[in-house]
Parts: sequence; C-alpha cells; structure tokens
Amino acid sequence: MTTFSRKSSFIILALIISPSVSATRASKFQAKKPCKRMVLYYHDKLFDGTEKDKANATSVTTANASKLSDTNFGMLVVFNDPITIDDKFHSPPVARAQGFYFYDRKDTYTAWFAYTLVFNSSEHKGTLNIMGADLMTEKTRDLSVVGGTGDFFMARGIATFQTDTFQGLYYFRLKMDIKLYECY
Amino acid sequence: MTTFSRKSSFIILALIISPSVSATRASKFQAKKPCKRMVLYYHDKLFDGTEKDKANATSVTTANASKLSDTNFGMLVVFNDPITIDDKFHSPPVARAQGFYFYDRKDTYTAWFAYTLVFNSSEHKGTLNIMGADLMTEKTRDLSVVGGTGDFFMARGIATFQTDTFQGLYYFRLKMDIKLYECY
Amino acid sequence: MTTFSRKSSFIILALIISPSVSATRASKFQAKKPCKRMVLYYHDKLFDGTEKDKANATSVTTANASKLSDTNFGMLVVFNDPITIDDKFHSPPVARAQGFYFYDRKDTYTAWFAYTLVFNSSEHKGTLNIMGADLMTEKTRDLSVVGGTGDFFMARGIATFQTDTFQGLYYFRLKMDIKLYECY
Repeated sequence: MTTFSRKSSFIILALIISPSVSATRASKFQAKKPCKRMVLYYHDKLFDGTEKDKANATSVTTANASKLSDTNFGMLVVFNDPITIDDKFHSPPVARAQGFYFYDRKDTYTAWFAYTLVFNSSEHKGTLNIMGADLMTEKTRDLSVVGGTGDFFMARGIATFQTDTFQGLYYFRLKMDIKLYECY
Repeated sequence: MTTFSRKSSFIILALIISPSVSATRASKFQAKKPCKRMVLYYHDKLFDGTEKDKANATSVTTANASKLSDTNFGMLVVFNDPITIDDKFHSPPVARAQGFYFYDRKDTYTAWFAYTLVFNSSEHKGTLNIMGADLMTEKTRDLSVVGGTGDFFMARGIATFQTDTFQGLYYFRLKMDIKLYECY
Repeated sequence: MTTFSRKSSFIILALIISPSVSATRASKFQAKKPCKRMVLYYHDKLFDGTEKDKANATSVTTANASKLSDTNFGMLVVFNDPITIDDKFHSPPVARAQGFYFYDRKDTYTAWFAYTLVFNSSEHKGTLNIMGADLMTEKTRDLSVVGGTGDFFMARGIATFQTDTFQGLYYFRLKMDIKLYECY
C-alpha cells in the first residue's frame, strides 16, 4: 500500500523550508505530479439479448437510442464491468467498474460516463468516483475523479481514457490512466 | 448553525504553532474527525403503479430491469425521497433527497446512486451532492459527498449507507451517516 | 487565458505575511471571491419526434414520464446543448453541455442535472463537470462544479442556474453563472 502524503501539506512545508519559491509555481509543479497513479483496463461486454450471452455480458441497455440520429443518441447502458491490469478480458479483475454511460451526439459518437471503481483486493480496498464526457473521437480524453473512499479516502484527480479496441457495439476496451492529485 | 472552520487552515495553524508535528500525521488525524456530521434516514417508497399508491409513493421506475438476470440489473429509479432524523416515514422531513439509483449486478443486488440532499429548514439551507456505489450486501458502504451549496458551500466528505429495513422492492430505508471533512 | 492562483496557497501566504488575521475569516473572505467566473447561456431544444425537428433538436427524451403525476416525474433527457455567451440560440457556441436531466417532483416541476461543459475554443480547452438539483421554481439555484480538466484542471465551484426563458417542454434557456473557488 502506497503511503499517501497530502499535497497542501507538501506545499506548506516547501514554503516554510524554502520561502523564496513562489506559491503559484510550487502549486503548478505539484499539480503535474500525481500522488497516486494506476493504469487499468476496462472491458464492456454489452448484452446482445441472447441466452448464450448471459454468462459473458457485463452491461445492459436500459434505454434505447432515439430516432434523432443513427449514432445511438440517448442510448443508456448500465454496467458492472471487470477492471484488469492488462488488456485481457479473462484476466483476474483487480476491481469492478459500476455505473452507466450514454451516447450523446447526433453526427458522430460521443458518450458520457459516471461510475465507481470498486476495489476489494489485498492491494486496495475502497472506491473512486468518476464522471465526465467521453469524447470518443479524440485519442485521449480526461474525466474527473471527484471523490474516493477507503484506501482512496477523499481523493481527487483525473481519469484519462484511451480506446484500446472495439468490436462493433458489443465489446469495447478502454485504457484508464487514473492520476490522483489530492491524496490524504 | 455550526461554525465551519476549514481543514487546511487548521493544519497550517497547527504547523505554525507546533512545527515539530509531522504534516502527514496531522493530516491523517484530521481526516478522521469530520468538521460536520449528520445522521439521517432516507425513505424510498417506490410507486407500485396503482391509483391508491399515488399519494404515498416517492419514487418511480423510469427504465425497467433487463432480461440479463433476475436481480433487476438495469432497472433505473428516479426519486424525491423524504429525509428524517428518526426512522419514521411520517416524521416531518428535514430534507429531500432528489436523484436516482439503478441496480447493476447479475448474481446479487447492488445499486448505484447519485443525488442531492436539499435542505430548506430553519436549521439548514443548502444542498449536498452525493454519488457512489451502494454495495447492498455489505453492512456499511461509503459514497462520496462531492460538493455542496448554501450552508454547505463547497463541502466534501463521505456518506456511509446502512440498510435499516426493506419490504420487498417497494419500500426500503437507509441510515445515512453524512461526514464532511472539508468545510468552508 | 487567466492566470490561476491556488486558494490555499493564497491563504498560506496571507497567514505568513500577516499572521494576526484569523484563519477562519481569511477562508470565508476568500470563499466569496471566485478565482474564475463565466456567465454562459444554455439552450435545450428537445426533439419533438418530427422529421423537420431533427436539424435543430439538441436533446432527446430517453425514458418517458411515469404515471405517478402530470409533472413529468421520471422523464429523462439526454442532451448535447450549445453554450453561448449571449442569449441567442444561433450565436456561435463557446462550449457544449453534454449530459442529462430528469424531472423528479410530483406536485410541481423540479429537475436534476449532471453534465460536462466541453470547451474547445481558442480561449479555453478543457471541461467542467457539474451536478446537482435544479429547483426550477426558485429564482436562482446552485449546483456543484465537482471537477475539471485541461484549462480547468481540478477546478471546483458553484454553478448558479437562472431560468432565462422557456417555451413549453420543447425549448428552455438557462443562464449559468459559473464561479470557480478552487483553481490550480
């Protein structure tokens, strides 16, 4: 278990030890250096409605796409997805991602996510709560880590998404680079 | 109205007054002691679709459970639920909880919540915004208080859920232990 | 681009420079003065289901209102709405608001929002993540800015909503006064 040190405490000490450093610069420097970082893979296997998919599926469509466009605008999916440390769907999950996403654009694909990373392993116990836009057409996109519990008590930070692969609508994998900038 | 004092200010003063205390330890100690705490009861009376339930119901199913499992996976409920300081449904509410939850597990019951506690009484005016996983099979589970307004301006903290009772799908009561660790 | 300075750094410097100022008062004073402020207009043009509305519509109903009441309780809308700096729907958008809202009250209209402001202009690149109750019957109401990315890295604050106009269910405009109190 990594020892967490709190950013503002660090800044205070830095100021006391070397008061000639400008507070603004110290803060900006610190902002670039996470107090905790984890690279994780998220696998979403959307239920295709068939009996034989029930064992594998990890998410379900709970509201259908609208007729506004052919880009799934309005389609809402609830998920309970495995999180692995490599890109293999069948690797032992180190966490679950529980939450939802929906598609929200007319002329191309973008989505919006809110979910909890639930850790319950020997390494980490606790949760991280995350929300934000998934601008799927960009190579990487940033969401907000807005809170945490347990080992991640009161954490904040950034979750950077990168599409690792997708197979039509029914399977996609995201690389999630979780960087915490406020740790307790 | 409780006087709020901001944690980091406290830490700074502590460091100035007694600089031999380690910043990390001061921070961890402080983290365990909320600047504000409230124990509240949340009552969810799900609309059963009958005419006579309209007066009592406080929440509605807005998307039905999927066929993936028989654990309500994908069922989404919008609520406007009374919050009381004791466990009586008919006690005068001290706040409303406005938001939604959905069920998100195949083999047992878990849920995910995002909501606002809306206070409008002589004691408190303002809101707290909360999100996180409700791992219903655990005795207690922690969600994140990610923001606040009014009397709870910019607050952050933890909301600990405990199932107090449930009667099938149509009524359940949660004890919510709200602990704020960042107050302004 | 505005230069951001971090609040707690400011407080620390203030304490060091003038240690007779009380920490609590310094914090409260600071709390009232945003480090960044933007007044924006949000336009929601809900799809009415007709072919000719497809070009203009910016949002869709993805779950219908329940039968609990005639106030749209449970109706859930996904949006990708233009954000302008004046109140004209056809002004060039300075951002998009991507997210959802739903109605959640039996006897009058209230709603609940979670969304991302996505900025991609010469002035700002980045996002702000916002959630909270929209108590529509009140003149102004506060939601929480719970995180940010890019130019708004790790920001927190308050988004004050004011209804600017509405035309039945299918068009409404909100004035959003975004005040950030934590900037990096």
